[in-house]
Amino acid sequence: MLYLIGLGLGDATDITVKGLQAVRSCSRVYLEAYTSILTVGKEALEEYYGKQLILADRDMVEQGADEILKDADVTDVAFLVVGDPFGATTHSDLVLRAVNAGIPYKVIHNASIMNAVGCCGLQLYNFGETVSVVFWTETWKPESFYDKICKNRAAGLHTLCLLDIKVKEQSIENMMRGKKIYEPPRFMTVSQAADQLIQIIQRRREEGEELGVTEDTVCVGLARLGADDQTIRSGTLRQLASCDLGGPLHSLVVTARLHPLEVDMLRVNSEPDALKHLRMIDSSTYTS
Amino acid sequence: MLYLIGLGLGDATDITVKGLQAVRSCSRVYLEAYTSILTVGKEALEEYYGKQLILADRDMVEQGADEILKDADVTDVAFLVVGDPFGATTHSDLVLRAVNAGIPYKVIHNASIMNAVGCCGLQLYNFGETVSVVFWTETWKPESFYDKICKNRAAGLHTLCLLDIKVKEQSIENMMRGKKIYEPPRFMTVSQAADQLIQIIQRRREEGEELGVTEDTVCVGLARLGADDQTIRSGTLRQLASCDLGGPLHSLVVTARLHPLEVDMLRVNSEPDALKHLRMIDSSTYTS
Repeated sequence: MLYLIGLGLGDATDITVKGLQAVRSCSRVYLEAYTSILTVGKEALEEYYGKQLILADRDMVEQGADEILKDADVTDVAFLVVGDPFGATTHSDLVLRAVNAGIPYKVIHNASIMNAVGCCGLQLYNFGETVSVVFWTETWKPESFYDKICKNRAAGLHTLCLLDIKVKEQSIENMMRGKKIYEPPRFMTVSQAADQLIQIIQRRREEGEELGVTEDTVCVGLARLGADDQTIRSGTLRQLASCDLGGPLHSLVVTARLHPLEVDMLRVNSEPDALKHLRMIDSSTYTS
Repeated sequence: MLYLIGLGLGDATDITVKGLQAVRSCSRVYLEAYTSILTVGKEALEEYYGKQLILADRDMVEQGADEILKDADVTDVAFLVVGDPFGATTHSDLVLRAVNAGIPYKVIHNASIMNAVGCCGLQLYNFGETVSVVFWTETWKPESFYDKICKNRAAGLHTLCLLDIKVKEQSIENMMRGKKIYEPPRFMTVSQAADQLIQIIQRRREEGEELGVTEDTVCVGLARLGADDQTIRSGTLRQLASCDLGGPLHSLVVTARLHPLEVDMLRVNSEPDALKHLRMIDSSTYTS
């Protein structure tokens, strides 16, 4: 049996009881380690589970799937994923390989940022398409996420922005030289994401474009959701561009049409004057 | 402290270890019982937790919040929610009452249908706005969910349809007579939801409207997600209208633009010929 087990979002105890039982019964346990991180490290998990974990980086999952699935028809193998195994990332490829090899699989779900983001008080019903914000380089500054946010906002829908993670990345120089030297991991912060968004807004404004999002749009920054030191901060996009929410992982939400109960929840964690740009559309709807 | 604890989607062991520790430490434990159900009942949870649970119906949560929060500044109280506390339902009202009363609160997340639906192989990135499908009555047949599905599809996005739950509902007759007699609980099935959708499609077709969804659109029915007997079935809307996926809870997904990997995953659980209406838009995109 191949178990795909979600670890949830905080520390080692955020695994489900069912997941923990499965982990402890498996002969090999892989930890997927390139799309997300827990605030505690691999060692803390190993100690808590009482099991050695095998780190599975992108190369291993994409090219070493046979190794992961080896003997899984006669023994139990676990593949651990931070959040939910089918949350922000899907591990369809591994599942399909198992199915094709006649290996049964079972998913043990857990919270992912895709649903836990609801704790900021914005209703998941009112979210549109989720977007990814990638680190810009000197020569590559994609803006498609901005357009999707605007499209969601035009439909009255909030947008969850997942922020880039760079783990085990090579510099272009090292890649060209074939050197397996990796850059330190990088995690995009709310302030970096807000800054990229503001740069796009400024450029579009100069081009005379009508803006779907501005520096005064109310947004929510989330950091280390589910951990003891999680931080939720609502503020204007401009305010979030200069805030420091601490260590990874961060996510950003751009709000749209707000129900009064959503406004009340945003107020619980808001920057001073963050909500002063809100205007009433009708008796039960606000926007910024 | 007020703990809002997600129970996940399957049985008693789907609670997180952190959640279980909190439940066992609390002096009072409420079980929210009107927006969702676990496949196991209250008694199974009580036995597993070693705690008595107080059932919290809609009346209690909406009008008896003071009772739930009583002494929560000096003792620990847990409020258990199937899925995630901020998943398909938000308990913002209870949280705001706690905040206003100076009672600290903590959310312990878990899987909800809003993220676990990803296990059918459709990427959560590719979902648009979630919709609710309510039971029609003789005189009330809302169609707004159909229009939202079409809007999502026009943008290439799948739609998660949450299906109606009627728990502790009075008949209009008993309500008017002030009799506290409740109807048996009802849970909308995938086939009932598909049937309502087909009725709308037929009516719109007769009116000469261009259709955003047809009887041949590929959909996915999900039943008892996370439970041992969970069932996932992909098929055309027409096929799902006549399928029996067994006991509650059910959900329905209407697909839109499909990546080849999504198609492969749908094929794992598909009705015969379910995918024959798929057509290729370009080398990496299909639709139905």
